[in-house]
Amino acid sequence: MQSLQIIFFSLLVSVSVSAPINTALAEMKEPLSAQQSDPRVLRWMEGFPPPADKLITQPDSVYFSFPKLRWSVCHLREFLPTEEISRGLKAPLPLTYAPAHEFAELRIAIDGLTFLPIGSSEEMTWEQSLFANYTDGLLILHKGKVVYERYFGCLNEDGKHAAMSMTKSVTGLLAEILVVEGALDENALVSEIIPEIGGSAFANATVREVMDMTTGVAYSEDYADPDADIWKYSKAASPLPKPDGYIGPNGYWEYLQEVEPEGNHGDAFHYKTINSDMLGWIISRVSGKAVTDLASERLWIPMGAEQSAYQTVDGNGVPFAGGGLSAGLRDLGRLGAMMLNGGKVGSEQVFPEQTVRNIRYGGHRDKFAGFPTLPGASYRSQWWVLHNDHGAFAARGVHGQTIYVDPTAEMVLVRFASHPQAKNGYIDPTSLPAFQAVAEYLMSLAD
Amino acid sequence: MQSLQIIFFSLLVSVSVSAPINTALAEMKEPLSAQQSDPRVLRWMEGFPPPADKLITQPDSVYFSFPKLRWSVCHLREFLPTEEISRGLKAPLPLTYAPAHEFAELRIAIDGLTFLPIGSSEEMTWEQSLFANYTDGLLILHKGKVVYERYFGCLNEDGKHAAMSMTKSVTGLLAEILVVEGALDENALVSEIIPEIGGSAFANATVREVMDMTTGVAYSEDYADPDADIWKYSKAASPLPKPDGYIGPNGYWEYLQEVEPEGNHGDAFHYKTINSDMLGWIISRVSGKAVTDLASERLWIPMGAEQSAYQTVDGNGVPFAGGGLSAGLRDLGRLGAMMLNGGKVGSEQVFPEQTVRNIRYGGHRDKFAGFPTLPGASYRSQWWVLHNDHGAFAARGVHGQTIYVDPTAEMVLVRFASHPQAKNGYIDPTSLPAFQAVAEYLMSLAD
Repeated sequence: MQSLQIIFFSLLVSVSVSAPINTALAEMKEPLSAQQSDPRVLRWMEGFPPPADKLITQPDSVYFSFPKLRWSVCHLREFLPTEEISRGLKAPLPLTYAPAHEFAELRIAIDGLTFLPIGSSEEMTWEQSLFANYTDGLLILHKGKVVYERYFGCLNEDGKHAAMSMTKSVTGLLAEILVVEGALDENALVSEIIPEIGGSAFANATVREVMDMTTGVAYSEDYADPDADIWKYSKAASPLPKPDGYIGPNGYWEYLQEVEPEGNHGDAFHYKTINSDMLGWIISRVSGKAVTDLASERLWIPMGAEQSAYQTVDGNGVPFAGGGLSAGLRDLGRLGAMMLNGGKVGSEQVFPEQTVRNIRYGGHRDKFAGFPTLPGASYRSQWWVLHNDHGAFAARGVHGQTIYVDPTAEMVLVRFASHPQAKNGYIDPTSLPAFQAVAEYLMSLAD
Repeated sequence: MQSLQIIFFSLLVSVSVSAPINTALAEMKEPLSAQQSDPRVLRWMEGFPPPADKLITQPDSVYFSFPKLRWSVCHLREFLPTEEISRGLKAPLPLTYAPAHEFAELRIAIDGLTFLPIGSSEEMTWEQSLFANYTDGLLILHKGKVVYERYFGCLNEDGKHAAMSMTKSVTGLLAEILVVEGALDENALVSEIIPEIGGSAFANATVREVMDMTTGVAYSEDYADPDADIWKYSKAASPLPKPDGYIGPNGYWEYLQEVEPEGNHGDAFHYKTINSDMLGWIISRVSGKAVTDLASERLWIPMGAEQSAYQTVDGNGVPFAGGGLSAGLRDLGRLGAMMLNGGKVGSEQVFPEQTVRNIRYGGHRDKFAGFPTLPGASYRSQWWVLHNDHGAFAARGVHGQTIYVDPTAEMVLVRFASHPQAKNGYIDPTSLPAFQAVAEYLMSLAD
């Protein structure tokens, strides 16, 4: 029974980090490098059967520990029950690629770009950053064309990778679509939509506070504390039958009914995964559809995805709206391109342009704190808004996952990674300045 | 720990039945009819969350019990870890449909066909048989065109359904391809290919005996017997960590290393699922690929499948080669069409024609017994060969699954079903004569 529960340790790890940035890199205890820990080098799960020391099995304290997680991020469905996010049955809408010679030149040029990591005095090349960040896949679209695409480690073009907390941004996008379309009232109280939320601290929060994570709800993700709420959430969320004598909540939604207050709703941004699952419940209730079906109908099918995606589920079949998504790299490129293009795929308006405007506008910057690598940023509808010169905004997930949209550079960058550190605070220093450098380079190109 | 194991009760149920046919229908204790047990009528899993009495959860003794199984056959991945059988990334190869007016007329004509069920004196219409058989999906191709396609219960065109023991036929087809291509020696002993099979009864069986299930291996699937081997196999195969104190085999392959002899290899056909998993191991060893990857590369991608399929796995990530497949109805239609067309998709030879010839030739009819609804039949490379006037052969799985290929009528018929009875001996009486009737009808049509 302990077996599948512990996955949620990692899946739910917050991206917050309070360690000073300039010590972040130094703190790392020299784990295996990206090249050393490449699952093809370590030969995980090779052979029929693999040798005992190359086998990756339950529980997740094993399969999701570094370096094994470098294999497992591409294979979560082999450990957990899942629901499909269907791409539908039609032909995929092909991505447009830069002409072959141009693509090859761009690869060389981008790999050679240099930037200064945050808190460092030593320059790094873009290509070095790929390894520093334990990149599994990196795709860049510029002005609607793929200009860069590389795969590493466990990933390839027809593989799928854990999106981790980028799942939240899909949930938030779906919610924002429903808000703009008038199907969901952002000013409604949670209790008006879900009366059985009962005495939960969520009851008198507004939908908007849930969307923007400004609720005042008690939920600790301190992994060192055996009484932390994360453990109770993990047990509730396990897809397995509860052990004999278990008296806690069963599933995400029962847990949400028991959340205690902590502070006041609306006062401040607190990055807490339970908001995303609360939001998943809200949009399922108002739409009459599981978040997987909503994501299929509103996003994966109309964007012409080339792969169906999937989402892990709890023991009642409820998808993990806060972290359960796995998807193909190019398909998250398609998602990012829709965000860049105001909800359009080609000439088709897939969802209202206002949806993207609302997200890009951002949340309350004065209520945002605790993310040293994201100064001046905000969180809106489960997206990170950088409020930088380029108006960049992003989906982000632990271990280095990101969809980074730079409207000024007309660039969408998607990265899957399996960094030994969960927290993006450790990964941003070699990432955000690199993204800025490639954006500036792409802007410098003649049309 | 008990939770996920019991799925294997149902998945492994033999299609054998020794009850006299003419009492088979009478024996049924009047379960809910197909219409009454339609999961949309019973409203399983509707609502966010569903009412407690509409929730379908672990363990499989719950979720795979009738009538809940009528929902669960379309949702196995939501209960179990799985591996993808990728369709690749290209556009699907569309099936050709009869022109709309013709399709509509054929539907009426076929639904009205009558036949005499085995052991009955009362005629039944084709359409009545769909409900008698708890059909979830039925597709008929004639001369390369879809002439009939209907969905019921939990299934629709973009859904996937448990294939049950039709999985064996995919495993067997892959093995036969490797035999014909020279990559697998059908006369080799298992121990020559897999030395670590050790003292298992499989060690001195030939590959062909494993393929045709003429091994002499002890394996009982008597569900009434608490000491039956099926329980030990289920425990070994469970994808969950073994319970404390568990000392049995871990996974399909460890189990296979401990199989005891029973009778002599080659003497007789015995329908035992462990042969299929032994075969899965053999083809993975010689090809260096998991059966899921083999099925993807050799079948799903080249046949232009419109959906990726999936296969359940054990705790070591080994796909269940004897029963773990779920797939789309039309994609099994594509598979059946390749079998009818001697391994061709359009003008492309996907696998050698000799593969199909070997399967259609059949196994040892004199060694085949115990299947009263299949008199004179045989089993070859995990396919059922009827040796009837039409040269029909079939993949078959419990609860009514079939791919039925009639070369004389140039007909491929695929049925997914969720009959309350597992054994096809109960379902054949209202199925096989119906298939024959529709074949004869299609043959009577002018070109």
